[in-house]
Amino acid sequence: MRDLIIIGGGPAGLTAGIYASRARLDVQLLEMTAPGGQILVSDLVENYPGFPGGISGGELMERMAEQARRLDLSIAVGEVTSVDFSGPLKKLALSDGKKIETKTVIIATGATPRKLGVPGENRFYGRGVSYCATCDGPFFRDKVVVAVGGGDTAVQESLFLTKFAKKVHLVHRRDALRAARILQERALGNDKLVMEWDSVVTSINGNDDVESVTVKNLKTGKARELAADGCFVWVGIEPNSGFLKDAVKLDEQGFVVTDATMATSAPGVFAAGDVRNTPLRQVATAVGDAAIAAMSAEHYIETMK
Amino acid sequence: MRDLIIIGGGPAGLTAGIYASRARLDVQLLEMTAPGGQILVSDLVENYPGFPGGISGGELMERMAEQARRLDLSIAVGEVTSVDFSGPLKKLALSDGKKIETKTVIIATGATPRKLGVPGENRFYGRGVSYCATCDGPFFRDKVVVAVGGGDTAVQESLFLTKFAKKVHLVHRRDALRAARILQERALGNDKLVMEWDSVVTSINGNDDVESVTVKNLKTGKARELAADGCFVWVGIEPNSGFLKDAVKLDEQGFVVTDATMATSAPGVFAAGDVRNTPLRQVATAVGDAAIAAMSAEHYIETMK
Repeated sequence: MRDLIIIGGGPAGLTAGIYASRARLDVQLLEMTAPGGQILVSDLVENYPGFPGGISGGELMERMAEQARRLDLSIAVGEVTSVDFSGPLKKLALSDGKKIETKTVIIATGATPRKLGVPGENRFYGRGVSYCATCDGPFFRDKVVVAVGGGDTAVQESLFLTKFAKKVHLVHRRDALRAARILQERALGNDKLVMEWDSVVTSINGNDDVESVTVKNLKTGKARELAADGCFVWVGIEPNSGFLKDAVKLDEQGFVVTDATMATSAPGVFAAGDVRNTPLRQVATAVGDAAIAAMSAEHYIETMK
Repeated sequence: MRDLIIIGGGPAGLTAGIYASRARLDVQLLEMTAPGGQILVSDLVENYPGFPGGISGGELMERMAEQARRLDLSIAVGEVTSVDFSGPLKKLALSDGKKIETKTVIIATGATPRKLGVPGENRFYGRGVSYCATCDGPFFRDKVVVAVGGGDTAVQESLFLTKFAKKVHLVHRRDALRAARILQERALGNDKLVMEWDSVVTSINGNDDVESVTVKNLKTGKARELAADGCFVWVGIEPNSGFLKDAVKLDEQGFVVTDATMATSAPGVFAAGDVRNTPLRQVATAVGDAAIAAMSAEHYIETMK
């Protein structure tokens, strides 16, 4: 039986693997496809500390995977479909019918931004379409961008974009924002930010990169094509936590609740990275979470009866 | 007036600077000497994700500092001697008499392991003397090491060392451990771990690297020279938080208490890295903390009246 199974091979999963391998745990990382996670789509990660000129998401992940392999981390392809964390041994069922028992588990399955589902969205993902202003905002200096959403995140991120972009069209399907009052006041008082009320994005257009966004007014039925270099989408983020069902405590949006040691409500089960109820989802935060989760798993095993 | 002053230029301070600069805050980082922090002493950092073959602490810090400079972070030399966080504007007094006002502060001043204060300790720091098994344990495969301490950390870290070292002498000044019962049982039942009761280290000896450790029995007064390749010291860690006095809530050991957004008890004041009451002190955790602290400072400013 393994000491530790890590579910997920993005920055959090690989870092947990690096720490656990160095701690000489008998550990296996399960990844649905190839290691990497959501960061793979990023052409340039400018804010992961240690790379002065930035690094592509793909290269950063290849470096982390290589580091993990050099420390003899076992990485296998496998999709966990259900879990049983009720006993002292943790049980995982995989989609190929295999069952695994392990002393501890780190959940590092990430989260997926909810998509608009409009033409051009997938095609231009990473080439003008983004789901993270903290990550990509600075690449839109003096450009025009379209943003979509009406909640706190959408407004906060749109305000953040106004520090770079010369104009931000914020497209919202209603005639009032849901965001906190103070954020609304900031948004409505910011002359770089133009509200597109009662509207939805119907397509994202361009050749190699985004060149325009088509916005339809739901009240008038009229569509307009806004010239834009980017389209930021904040209509929610879905944690990849469906396979957990009721095995660990989730918050109302489905993110895994942890304490400061990354422990979940199930003893011996830890979580790290985007799947966790964290205030920020970045490579930097994923690696921090994961280092803690791996050492917490090690301490847990060390004090098991 | 600045948006943000970051106090400290180790991994946490520099990462906060990278994030805050990218967020276009008007930010200054204050460092007592040169950027780097405690990691500078590490010859080889193997567990910071992204460097498959490891990287020296000095090179990693130079890369982070270069990244911060490229994003136009202002770095100044200055020692903060006292603070006043009682009002909406935060006030800092420097040792040269200068006063600074700022909207927000990130405390990233780190922590310093308590030293034994014996001959050889400073000379061999980074060349056999270590204060962190998670960091340096794997470099002592099949070696003999001396460890010092009797609390939870000392016993936990000594057990961790037995995964690598062929023998660990645990030197403790009393005749019983203070660590949790289960850890004691593990330690006393581990045949790679030899207890040196009622004893203290009186010197650490060698030429280029540690070759032996002199241990004196306090009851018999007899000194012995133990052949050893390393000496791990866990007699406590001191947060560099003295200048804060009662300005923010500290835990009983003096570490800064924060919530998950890295907010301290003083509104607009955040903390990141080793100075924080964190379960793990690593470069990986410092950068995670710092990314969150910087974005929390940005959100705080965005919602200031």
